[in-house]
Amino acid sequence: MKLIESVKEFGGYLNRYTHYSVACHCEMTFSVYLPPQAAHGNVPALYWLSGLTCTDDNFRVKAGAQRYAAEQGIALIIPDTSPRGDDVPDVPERYDLGQGAGFYVNAIQPPWDKHFRMYDYVVEELPHLVEANLPLIPGVKSISGHSMGGHGALIAALKNPGVYRSVSAFAPICHPLNGEWGKGCFAAYLGENTALWEAYDATCLVQAGAHVPEILIDQGTADEFLSEGQLLPEVFQAACLQAEQPLSLRMQEGYDHSYHFIATFIGEHIAWHARALV
Amino acid sequence: MKLIESVKEFGGYLNRYTHYSVACHCEMTFSVYLPPQAAHGNVPALYWLSGLTCTDDNFRVKAGAQRYAAEQGIALIIPDTSPRGDDVPDVPERYDLGQGAGFYVNAIQPPWDKHFRMYDYVVEELPHLVEANLPLIPGVKSISGHSMGGHGALIAALKNPGVYRSVSAFAPICHPLNGEWGKGCFAAYLGENTALWEAYDATCLVQAGAHVPEILIDQGTADEFLSEGQLLPEVFQAACLQAEQPLSLRMQEGYDHSYHFIATFIGEHIAWHARALV
Repeated sequence: MKLIESVKEFGGYLNRYTHYSVACHCEMTFSVYLPPQAAHGNVPALYWLSGLTCTDDNFRVKAGAQRYAAEQGIALIIPDTSPRGDDVPDVPERYDLGQGAGFYVNAIQPPWDKHFRMYDYVVEELPHLVEANLPLIPGVKSISGHSMGGHGALIAALKNPGVYRSVSAFAPICHPLNGEWGKGCFAAYLGENTALWEAYDATCLVQAGAHVPEILIDQGTADEFLSEGQLLPEVFQAACLQAEQPLSLRMQEGYDHSYHFIATFIGEHIAWHARALV
Repeated sequence: MKLIESVKEFGGYLNRYTHYSVACHCEMTFSVYLPPQAAHGNVPALYWLSGLTCTDDNFRVKAGAQRYAAEQGIALIIPDTSPRGDDVPDVPERYDLGQGAGFYVNAIQPPWDKHFRMYDYVVEELPHLVEANLPLIPGVKSISGHSMGGHGALIAALKNPGVYRSVSAFAPICHPLNGEWGKGCFAAYLGENTALWEAYDATCLVQAGAHVPEILIDQGTADEFLSEGQLLPEVFQAACLQAEQPLSLRMQEGYDHSYHFIATFIGEHIAWHARALV
């Protein structure tokens, strides 16, 4: 991995790296915030998965998370949301399919199957890479994300019990099988057999018996994608209740889907992860 | 003034307004963060002046200031950096002259003199407008800014003793008469008579006897524009020492000119302004 940018912030360093991804068969870019504590020893890591249209840039610039990460001594690992490049398939006229919309699955349908393997990238390849090259405590990690990235965080944790110390999400796509974004991407990447989609759907995973100690979700009540039915936290909540999966779903009055909503509550999420990590 | 956007953040509201500016002879856009305390009574205001190329958007998205403003009960008033629009002169190939580069002066040279009156806009028109229309305590205000906006904050305070309760700046252009950005804009907006430039130069103002109780400046040592000689804080510091103008110039080791630098120290600046405002 190659360091291409380093900016000092809150006493630590916000770095950007590129590397060749074996999972995605292309050059990938990601950001890491190393808190000041990383200068003196290994630190735990919080992975952040971003939403549709994002790169690694949105969270590092807009969320205000570095302050809390510096306070708690936690590294932030911020991958891109899909493979990218001229050789990577895309649908330029759509923001919700192709580049910027990897949906954290391993695609099995052409033309997506060669590059769009973001599940393996986020869960396997990236942790191995950063733990081998950065001052991180091996295996001590948690995960969070927003919207499509909230979906990614939930499925990464539910599919890998014990691997993540804690999981949280902001306005996650809780049941992509029944939202337009999810249906569009799953059909393209996984094909028409919806039985295969269930392995990447947080609600279906909980219904099938997946279990983690606790899940924290914040959801704004003024979120336009909530009223559009893209997110479906109420369906996930019902599944968790049925399966006795502990869930703290906090409906935040008047907040929308933006990074201003994330900025408001990211400090509480990082403090919550810190209890499991530090 | 017309409200065009309102987003809930940290319990308050981040609003965006447009209005017709008498000073600038065009429609202007600005943002205001109203902290939760503004729902129950009038609050003091901190004006933030942004740097070259910025609009009102940069600070509201990147600085992480709303958290601290909410904690302290201070409104943030965030103007644009110049007049804009098809009728407003510009030099599209230059980022450091014309739209996005108003330099907080009242231009007297054509073609700039009709619209580029950002000094009057920021110091007179905007405070009258927001104090008449928003839950602000009339006359209780402070000012800060970054780079070109740090220059703007310094001259606004130095030219109007008693009007601002406190003034601070991040990496300000301290002596535009001797930096390339300053010379380019002052020549265009004010003409070749450099005696007229001195009225908008913080160092010259201090040398001429302008005085405020105290000035706080943070400056990153890894700031590329510091080494280029655009900012000249050492010249300002010498002038303040000579004139017995209290100045706290903090050279912050390893920080650059970006909003990551601002994010790191904006909490300390807002706490410092709060001591004068709240």
